[in-house]
Amino acid sequence: MAELLYVPPQEFQRLDQLKLSPAARTRLFATFCRINTLYMIARAGSGHIGSSFSSLDIVSWLYLNEIQPEDLYFSSKGHDVPGLYAVLLGLGVLPFENIHALRRLGGLPGHPDVATPGIVTNTGPLGMGISKAKGMAFANRLQGTPGRIYVLTGDGELQEGQLWESLASAANRGLGEITAIVDHNKVQSDTFVKSVSDLGDLKAKFRSFGWEVARCDGHDFAALQRVLRRFRTVTDRPKVLIADTVKGAGVSFMQHTAMTPQERFYRFHSGAPDDDAYARASAELISSANAQLAAASAPPLRTESRPRPERPAPADAQRMVVAYSRELLRHAEKEPRLVALDADLELDCGLIPFRERFPERYVECGIAEQDMVSQAGGMALRGLLPVVHSFACFLSTRANEQIYNNATERRKILYVGSLAGLLPSGPGHSHQSVRDIAALGSIPGLVALEPSCEQEVALAVDYCVNGTKESCYLRLVSIPCQVPYQLPAGYRLQEGRGAVLTEGDDAILFAYGPVLLPQAYAAAAALKTEHGINAGVVNLPWLNRVDDTWLRRTLGDRRHVFTLDNHYVHGGQGQLIAARIAGLGLDPSPQVYNLGVTDIPVCGTNPEALAAHELDSAGLVRTVAGVVERERQRA
Amino acid sequence: MAELLYVPPQEFQRLDQLKLSPAARTRLFATFCRINTLYMIARAGSGHIGSSFSSLDIVSWLYLNEIQPEDLYFSSKGHDVPGLYAVLLGLGVLPFENIHALRRLGGLPGHPDVATPGIVTNTGPLGMGISKAKGMAFANRLQGTPGRIYVLTGDGELQEGQLWESLASAANRGLGEITAIVDHNKVQSDTFVKSVSDLGDLKAKFRSFGWEVARCDGHDFAALQRVLRRFRTVTDRPKVLIADTVKGAGVSFMQHTAMTPQERFYRFHSGAPDDDAYARASAELISSANAQLAAASAPPLRTESRPRPERPAPADAQRMVVAYSRELLRHAEKEPRLVALDADLELDCGLIPFRERFPERYVECGIAEQDMVSQAGGMALRGLLPVVHSFACFLSTRANEQIYNNATERRKILYVGSLAGLLPSGPGHSHQSVRDIAALGSIPGLVALEPSCEQEVALAVDYCVNGTKESCYLRLVSIPCQVPYQLPAGYRLQEGRGAVLTEGDDAILFAYGPVLLPQAYAAAAALKTEHGINAGVVNLPWLNRVDDTWLRRTLGDRRHVFTLDNHYVHGGQGQLIAARIAGLGLDPSPQVYNLGVTDIPVCGTNPEALAAHELDSAGLVRTVAGVVERERQRA
Repeated sequence: MAELLYVPPQEFQRLDQLKLSPAARTRLFATFCRINTLYMIARAGSGHIGSSFSSLDIVSWLYLNEIQPEDLYFSSKGHDVPGLYAVLLGLGVLPFENIHALRRLGGLPGHPDVATPGIVTNTGPLGMGISKAKGMAFANRLQGTPGRIYVLTGDGELQEGQLWESLASAANRGLGEITAIVDHNKVQSDTFVKSVSDLGDLKAKFRSFGWEVARCDGHDFAALQRVLRRFRTVTDRPKVLIADTVKGAGVSFMQHTAMTPQERFYRFHSGAPDDDAYARASAELISSANAQLAAASAPPLRTESRPRPERPAPADAQRMVVAYSRELLRHAEKEPRLVALDADLELDCGLIPFRERFPERYVECGIAEQDMVSQAGGMALRGLLPVVHSFACFLSTRANEQIYNNATERRKILYVGSLAGLLPSGPGHSHQSVRDIAALGSIPGLVALEPSCEQEVALAVDYCVNGTKESCYLRLVSIPCQVPYQLPAGYRLQEGRGAVLTEGDDAILFAYGPVLLPQAYAAAAALKTEHGINAGVVNLPWLNRVDDTWLRRTLGDRRHVFTLDNHYVHGGQGQLIAARIAGLGLDPSPQVYNLGVTDIPVCGTNPEALAAHELDSAGLVRTVAGVVERERQRA
Repeated sequence: MAELLYVPPQEFQRLDQLKLSPAARTRLFATFCRINTLYMIARAGSGHIGSSFSSLDIVSWLYLNEIQPEDLYFSSKGHDVPGLYAVLLGLGVLPFENIHALRRLGGLPGHPDVATPGIVTNTGPLGMGISKAKGMAFANRLQGTPGRIYVLTGDGELQEGQLWESLASAANRGLGEITAIVDHNKVQSDTFVKSVSDLGDLKAKFRSFGWEVARCDGHDFAALQRVLRRFRTVTDRPKVLIADTVKGAGVSFMQHTAMTPQERFYRFHSGAPDDDAYARASAELISSANAQLAAASAPPLRTESRPRPERPAPADAQRMVVAYSRELLRHAEKEPRLVALDADLELDCGLIPFRERFPERYVECGIAEQDMVSQAGGMALRGLLPVVHSFACFLSTRANEQIYNNATERRKILYVGSLAGLLPSGPGHSHQSVRDIAALGSIPGLVALEPSCEQEVALAVDYCVNGTKESCYLRLVSIPCQVPYQLPAGYRLQEGRGAVLTEGDDAILFAYGPVLLPQAYAAAAALKTEHGINAGVVNLPWLNRVDDTWLRRTLGDRRHVFTLDNHYVHGGQGQLIAARIAGLGLDPSPQVYNLGVTDIPVCGTNPEALAAHELDSAGLVRTVAGVVERERQRA
């Protein structure tokens, strides 16, 4: 078990006392923060090292030398927040114990949330930062509150339309209190910005929108100081600093500049380093800190440590995205009209095999979901079968009007949303897609479905490509899942119909997908052994269609119906099932309990989040047993 | 009754035979088309004259001189489609009888739809055009299909982020087959682009995104020809022509250049001219045509005519937006934190009184809904109470992720969506907001409600400002409505609870808003007199909340429940009511019928659309009587 090292508060206090130049102090502070960022991410098991490190010198400089109490700073990209947490912990803004609680329930969320001290606004969805800053500036001016607003953006983030949408009025209104800093680390989620969707002449772009522009090395404190000083004198228009940075800066082998020409993917964008990478990176940073301390004639760093938590991967886990990747390729071999579009999530959406096999049928759109979806519309009008990919949270909401506009053309388009549902809960609510069924489900001519195991993924992809003339939304869970059930022999997909996985007459649980069906399955077993309750479990993969005949037959004369949504209850599958049950006019009619997410999802480990939302098997057992036993007592 | 004049097909054929230069032919063709555009809009009672006229010279030139059979042309802004229809009618692409059927059921939709011959793609929502063109270009290349793609955009449209999002990859991919033309007519929906959200140096902007740029007078055919010829030689990158045009060009008093310095609003953006304006405009255009014919030594124009259809305004109509406008102002006087944001719909959203009274608390964001919503988020974080305005269709779907992101910050923001619901149905499905309840309803901490009369608007605004700590979505119908019911004496808003408007024990109809409640009310009267059925009518203004206790009491022992949604059935209020009824576990339980929109809404007059969706009182009577009488026969 690896020991994970961190720099404790007293070492930050010692740094405070050292006689150092602003640049030297900031350098050492940032090094401490890198050690702690690495600690937090290794401990959490996930998090964004690359952009935390690329931005840490800038953020450290801002907090130690630039930002006044009345000023505001936030990161528009947001996924660099472990680095910001390290700064806030080092400054004592955040209680230090939080260093052990990145991505844990009640701890520090995977993306910024205003419930955390020192966090100004919620980010994680990209491109919103300058808009928010404009709103803050307006409020400050109206209320006579002073203060400048510093917004960090990514460079991949500049592919989002909202960012450009937000620029013009900032200039027209002369919002000189806003300073944007582009953390131009050259690498976005998958690979180099240049190869995903090149930004061209960034200075000319910002200038053409009326912004004051500067560019410098984002790791050179003298240069940062020079630009920021000059910016203070520019008060009649917003300013942007394009800061050239290195992704993973501070650890030699994590720097994107260390990538070989053969390497396509940068390896430290998200996800935790393994033990070896952790040890090497940590040693390198500590050695750098010690060199800096020695140069200041100070004793070496005294770190503290905790063991790395064990996070065994589930045995025999099924992986929906891997299965999807395989099936997509299989169908693409047979269907030449099939083309795939991606928004900088090639790796996460399982698209590498497709791109390698069919480069001419693959469109990497960059972080530009609206553009991607409307491109797909144009392709469908010209006879292609576009398959559009992104994370479910972004695809369903950022491009919502575009998907609907496509639907009104009644051409077939497939939308595939990965990272669907409550889990993983580590990234936090901006990435937990628990609203996509509601956001897309009402679109006419669009069938939404979520497979519950690898076998059903294959059936679902075949259905989407060959089984329907309608457009489809395929909802995919991204985490590996242990699947305790098997689909019935001869199971095939029939619109609006599901399959009974567990028989049981006392109650019936409808669920879908590999996250909640296993919980329901386990709950049914526990209900039987612990409470003598026979609960049936039904897999209904159709998210916005229910077949009345099947529903009536499946319900039988059961009086207690539970629906389980890996989604908000409102607008989820369960409400549709309940509404259809009310539409059947059964006599007697069962009572329906819609279970699912009812408030903004918590951030935490996956078991923590399931339990917090009462959606783990234990919670389900409590709920179902509570209802059935209450009824039994009444009877 | 005014006679409306149009140029019949034989006159276009005569034009074909005249010996004319390309410029003279195009000029005369465009004049014919202006006459017919004016005819169509006057006949329809609404439509966009200003931008049809500003673009007609460009569109005529393209169709007569530039576009080859393999090429594609479409307008990204889409609301200039009456002008395009005139061109397609003049060329015989569209059956000529359609000239009489603008915005009529089965005729020519208010915004482009691919079901219409000659229409390439569905537009109306702004900013999607270049993305679509890129998809078409990709498909063409993949399939070896030749052809250039011409996309017309608005200038106000350039405020939309998606447009800028779409530019970079067009340049990076070298899509030389794409030519964009900006119809730079200087005036957007409300007023001058310059004063709404100035575009700055447009040439520099497009150039910085890697596009080849030209600029010329969009009414000067020689200049258009010169630029388009040069563009043909540029094949390695996309091209954009900034065409300086005059809004309303061709009719002296409709030209924006005729506005006095005191005039803030351009009067011919949408909406039909009155009889006098029609007569003067028509006479001016015909006189221009005759002058051109005379110059070609041809006899004068022989127009045909039809009487203008009578469209009496409903007597004693109630206007939700007018009432809202008044109430907003009233509350703003008392609540200094209240600020209003608008996206170029100041007039339609009733914001003029607010802006004039509180200019410093008013933010005109331009056509930039995402930016507007995120600005509101920033304002709320800094202590203001932002009230965000747009049409319901755009606000709920274009800015969907931004609204959710704000919600996760748990600050109070009010969203006000006008033009909600199926009506007016003339603009077509891009503007018929029948998906907003689904798109927003699942957001935690956001209450959605729709008032059914002016009195309830006042209650609703008071509730939103003072009655809740949650964010609100206030859904407003924009058409004037005759309201036959009165709210009960002492009625007040209680979350999730409604009011009985008509008593009746045989069935119960739940509805909301001033469009369907009057239909339900009339249906109940007809059910009683014609079928002896006593149907109760309930106004439930809460769109995503139902109080179980109230619901149980209101249902009583009625066995037939009908819900009416001015929205898709899927994700509407009715499914929530049905789901809650299933959740009550009533014994016996009523059978619930969810009525509402079930397919993409039709375009037509308001009565046509209501009838087509079976949501007029006659349709409701048929449905309800059918159910109740079937049951009576069974019993």
